[in-house]
Amino acid sequence: MESSKSLQQRAIETIRFLSADGVQEANSGHPGLPMGTASIAYTIWKKHLKINPERPKWVDRDRFVLSGGHGSMLIYSLLHLSGFDLPLNELKNFRQWGSKTPGHPEYGITVGVETTTGPLGQGFANGVGMAIAEEKLASAFNKQDMTIVDHYIYAIVTDGDLMEGVSSEAASLAGHLQLGKLIYFYDDNRISIEGNTDVAFTEDRAERFEAYGWHVQTVKDGNEVDAIDKAIITAKKDKRPSLIICKTTIGYGLPTKQGTESAHGAPPGEEELANAKKLAGWDPEKKFVIEADVADHFKEILTRGKKVYKKWNDLFEKYKNSYTEEASDYLRRMEGELPDGWKNDLPIFDADDKGIASRSSSGTVLNAISKKVPELIGGSADLAPSNKTWIKDGKAFQADTPEGKNIHFGVRENAMGSIVNGITYHGGFIPFGATFLVFSDYMRPAIRLSALSDLHSIWIFTHDSIGVGEDGPTHQPVEHLASLRAIPNLSVIRPADANETREAWISAMENKHTPTALILSRQNLPTIDRSTYAPAENLHKGAYILSDFGDGSPQVILMASGSEVGLALQSAAVLADEGIRTRVVSFPSWDLFEKQPDSYQAEVFPQDIKVRVAVEAGVSMGWRKWIGDQGDVVTVDKYGASAPASTIFSEYGFSVENVVMKVKNLLG
Amino acid sequence: MESSKSLQQRAIETIRFLSADGVQEANSGHPGLPMGTASIAYTIWKKHLKINPERPKWVDRDRFVLSGGHGSMLIYSLLHLSGFDLPLNELKNFRQWGSKTPGHPEYGITVGVETTTGPLGQGFANGVGMAIAEEKLASAFNKQDMTIVDHYIYAIVTDGDLMEGVSSEAASLAGHLQLGKLIYFYDDNRISIEGNTDVAFTEDRAERFEAYGWHVQTVKDGNEVDAIDKAIITAKKDKRPSLIICKTTIGYGLPTKQGTESAHGAPPGEEELANAKKLAGWDPEKKFVIEADVADHFKEILTRGKKVYKKWNDLFEKYKNSYTEEASDYLRRMEGELPDGWKNDLPIFDADDKGIASRSSSGTVLNAISKKVPELIGGSADLAPSNKTWIKDGKAFQADTPEGKNIHFGVRENAMGSIVNGITYHGGFIPFGATFLVFSDYMRPAIRLSALSDLHSIWIFTHDSIGVGEDGPTHQPVEHLASLRAIPNLSVIRPADANETREAWISAMENKHTPTALILSRQNLPTIDRSTYAPAENLHKGAYILSDFGDGSPQVILMASGSEVGLALQSAAVLADEGIRTRVVSFPSWDLFEKQPDSYQAEVFPQDIKVRVAVEAGVSMGWRKWIGDQGDVVTVDKYGASAPASTIFSEYGFSVENVVMKVKNLLG
Repeated sequence: MESSKSLQQRAIETIRFLSADGVQEANSGHPGLPMGTASIAYTIWKKHLKINPERPKWVDRDRFVLSGGHGSMLIYSLLHLSGFDLPLNELKNFRQWGSKTPGHPEYGITVGVETTTGPLGQGFANGVGMAIAEEKLASAFNKQDMTIVDHYIYAIVTDGDLMEGVSSEAASLAGHLQLGKLIYFYDDNRISIEGNTDVAFTEDRAERFEAYGWHVQTVKDGNEVDAIDKAIITAKKDKRPSLIICKTTIGYGLPTKQGTESAHGAPPGEEELANAKKLAGWDPEKKFVIEADVADHFKEILTRGKKVYKKWNDLFEKYKNSYTEEASDYLRRMEGELPDGWKNDLPIFDADDKGIASRSSSGTVLNAISKKVPELIGGSADLAPSNKTWIKDGKAFQADTPEGKNIHFGVRENAMGSIVNGITYHGGFIPFGATFLVFSDYMRPAIRLSALSDLHSIWIFTHDSIGVGEDGPTHQPVEHLASLRAIPNLSVIRPADANETREAWISAMENKHTPTALILSRQNLPTIDRSTYAPAENLHKGAYILSDFGDGSPQVILMASGSEVGLALQSAAVLADEGIRTRVVSFPSWDLFEKQPDSYQAEVFPQDIKVRVAVEAGVSMGWRKWIGDQGDVVTVDKYGASAPASTIFSEYGFSVENVVMKVKNLLG
Repeated sequence: MESSKSLQQRAIETIRFLSADGVQEANSGHPGLPMGTASIAYTIWKKHLKINPERPKWVDRDRFVLSGGHGSMLIYSLLHLSGFDLPLNELKNFRQWGSKTPGHPEYGITVGVETTTGPLGQGFANGVGMAIAEEKLASAFNKQDMTIVDHYIYAIVTDGDLMEGVSSEAASLAGHLQLGKLIYFYDDNRISIEGNTDVAFTEDRAERFEAYGWHVQTVKDGNEVDAIDKAIITAKKDKRPSLIICKTTIGYGLPTKQGTESAHGAPPGEEELANAKKLAGWDPEKKFVIEADVADHFKEILTRGKKVYKKWNDLFEKYKNSYTEEASDYLRRMEGELPDGWKNDLPIFDADDKGIASRSSSGTVLNAISKKVPELIGGSADLAPSNKTWIKDGKAFQADTPEGKNIHFGVRENAMGSIVNGITYHGGFIPFGATFLVFSDYMRPAIRLSALSDLHSIWIFTHDSIGVGEDGPTHQPVEHLASLRAIPNLSVIRPADANETREAWISAMENKHTPTALILSRQNLPTIDRSTYAPAENLHKGAYILSDFGDGSPQVILMASGSEVGLALQSAAVLADEGIRTRVVSFPSWDLFEKQPDSYQAEVFPQDIKVRVAVEAGVSMGWRKWIGDQGDVVTVDKYGASAPASTIFSEYGFSVENVVMKVKNLLG
């Protein structure tokens, strides 16, 4: 190695070659981003990032988001070099079964990874959520004499991130909210998978971000540490979110591949990598090399981090003494623990035939929870009056009212989802996002990532069926319940009445490692008389026997969720009158039911009762599991229609007559 | 009515009150947009729109897109007034069962409605697709002496449209492609459902669109016909796509509600509407009023349209004489008919154990079809080299190469979907859009609308399972097959080998009123020996018996799709060796199979064979329908992992041993 080369330069090359070695060893991965942005990452981590690798969950740490998650080896190299618990062996096992270095960064798998990224644009928007969380915590807990919350969110974002609509949505909102703690680096390498970005992406990015209200700087050479450093210092002084456009070279240092798409997503090849090392004055034969002085150089991150952490910790000890209650509340929230007695005074809804829409009872419960759980915040994608998600004593969250609990997300579902996830990743809050169920389609990438990353995000989806009525098929979900149920580790709950809605909220609040989707009606649902029928607390079992109609053991099971439970009850009464003993099962959640012991499942659905009808205003897909070979369904296996809801329901067969007929047909 | 008022003014008020009357009569709907944009719509339709209401499908007509579909009464009023076959009675039946005036405009339901809109941002992007179609047709068919393709795409877009990421994606691409035929009006009414747009949407829209490369004009008073007219004339002269920002007042004319969110989405109320009419000098008692002179005034649209149409038709007659072949090709394509013999020379793949990835065989077939079907165009969201969708002799479609067949969509899945739909809406092309299956989530709103509107859009989704390997769970679809199958009227086909892939393409090409999603593997799939097994043409039946292993009628059915068919065949061979007679069913498409007669279905799955195992590298949801109460599955009901594909498959139970064991367990 050239001795004339600065330690800093060799440190940057170490990031570059560690990353490339990881990719080459795995024979799979993306060398282009880590090699192209090594100097940017170096400058952030070595000169700015406030972290203590020995305390990876320190609440006041800066957050680092690699939105272009395909460059994962970059983050693994940085984590290893700066002293996180990620041994070199894990880097050598990049992308292998059981390693802590999966193909894309995964939250929960690798210590120090703050977000699961890869699906483009999501990390960009996650960071916006983190900045919201930071600002809200700062406003809630900082005191004039003690600043205990004060950190930045750094991100490296790519062409792909900026092309995705979700980042446009998130950037517009971040500019509106003046989230000055965001410092984003745009890896402007002018290369996408299909070639030069000129083939599809010629907009003026700087002008676009200025239009959003961002502070935009350009670094002409993304390898220039001093220029990057200066840009960060300038960014910190500006109250707006910052985009620092860095002109980079993808796969920098690869002699024949750098600056071309071939450096993006495939191993460089042994020879190319060896030649790259030669060019840089490295030993081409050696892999995963970290020279001793380079290792020491990076260890300064740890040394600095421990010092800064200690300073913060000393301050926090004082804070504890002066503001005991706030301190314990802060720690509780950052631990994700709910306050004692949080559910003591939730509303109980009286039996009522006219009833109440579950979106409305949800709004009532949400407001009741909010009174005791300050960390519950969220908002809607411009549908709060319809979703009934407004926290009445909570104000709007805006640049000048950071204490506000209600986030106006605008008509930006995907960003809403990713921002909610970002708030969850950050910690200190239980956030929710709301829209019409049919528009959950717009935010599926974020919903999926919440489930994949075990996040405590809460999704509120109202207007849950053809019951939407006049707005017609574009606004009537039919396949959405099924398609949400298909997502692993997403709890999907469709409560039947106001009291089940309360329980659904409790489930959502307590289910810390699983996001919950609450599926709520637009139209009124009768509030079931719980003195006659089984208690709503059974919701937590996913499915439960509401009642057996008629004397003796049932011949027939009617099962339903949400708005169709009322119809099942009415139908069972008619059947019982005709001497057909009928069980009604309220079935708000398949996933909760699947978690019950077999014995409970068999109690609800005894093997010998083969005549089963499922009633649900959605596609039939998946119900066969519960109704069995001899069962039948009353479902919606086509698109809805525009008409008053009652008309559509009856035209689509949601009538006592039809349910009764289906049962009788099965009985033969 | 004040006689002093100009006819033009009364005509605009007629649009306004017809729309408001429709909403009030339905007691449901959105008066705000039609009342606020009546002058804009009037100016477009009365002074510019090239249509012949008696020939609503005239191929060279201008297209009008109401991206804010909630303002549907606007379009119904315009259609009625300008002489389309939409009687006044339909306006009175707005949002009622069976009417031609559903809550949001639906393509195929109402003559003259060019796109299904409502889900925000989609119409915006559909228009971009239409402009691509227009430009490509113009480049293909116009001659120096005869311009037979030359029309504009007008749209009214709203705050909500511009907030949605999909419109950012589409606008960036439209600017890049310099689609000058786009003339979009932004209904800048500063009101969203949650209140003033200042709560969430304070970006500089003009600057943002200029950054995309658009020509931006501002009309200070959206009621000023002359100013709007002038802006359109200016827009037509500019080569860039145009955004005309019109400052409007939501619910203009409603005395107490105009300019507020209460005018957006609820009927104005009888009194408010009566007062509005009084204020305008109208009879407050009368509804659905069209004065005779106003009716005549609007009929000029028809008169002008017939004249322009005749001129075009005369030209086209000459064109037919001079360019007979082109003319017939043009008409054929606009009719959506495939050329004779289009599938004569599609490749047949030889049996081959090593095989070929279905994404690759798809690429081969796509290129073969393209040679005979010039209207097949499309592209990928920056993954063409991975999706294998590049048309090799087709060039890229760019501003200076409109003849190009390959569209670089950029990393913009949702816009890709809506643009593909827009191309389909326009006619003249069979377009496709491609990405990784896992990222179909980003474009679900567009996929849904293609199915809801019976569009001939083709979706190509590769990298279809944990077979993705090292990229890990963020890139491995598991729930996506299920969630696509849940969408009504979407044909989902997962071919097992290269020859099934060919047949899947044929199905996609011939299925004119159903979009098709092709689900393709990253990894190689053995090419099944069709001299031993049933022919691949059976794919069109959705499921078919590949072979019965062992002598005599089968005891066991193994069913599988895509990459798992090979495993089913291997397992069946082992089972047969052990004396267990096993049928293997290749099951590429549930929806195609569901369309088969019961007799065929029973032939494939005889009632008396209860031991059935489904093998598919995706969630089990929905398979119970085919395996029955006594069946079992080898599926993936959790997220994938990052490792070489073969490791993941075996760790997840996709092995002959496991399949055989499952069968034996069922046999007891």
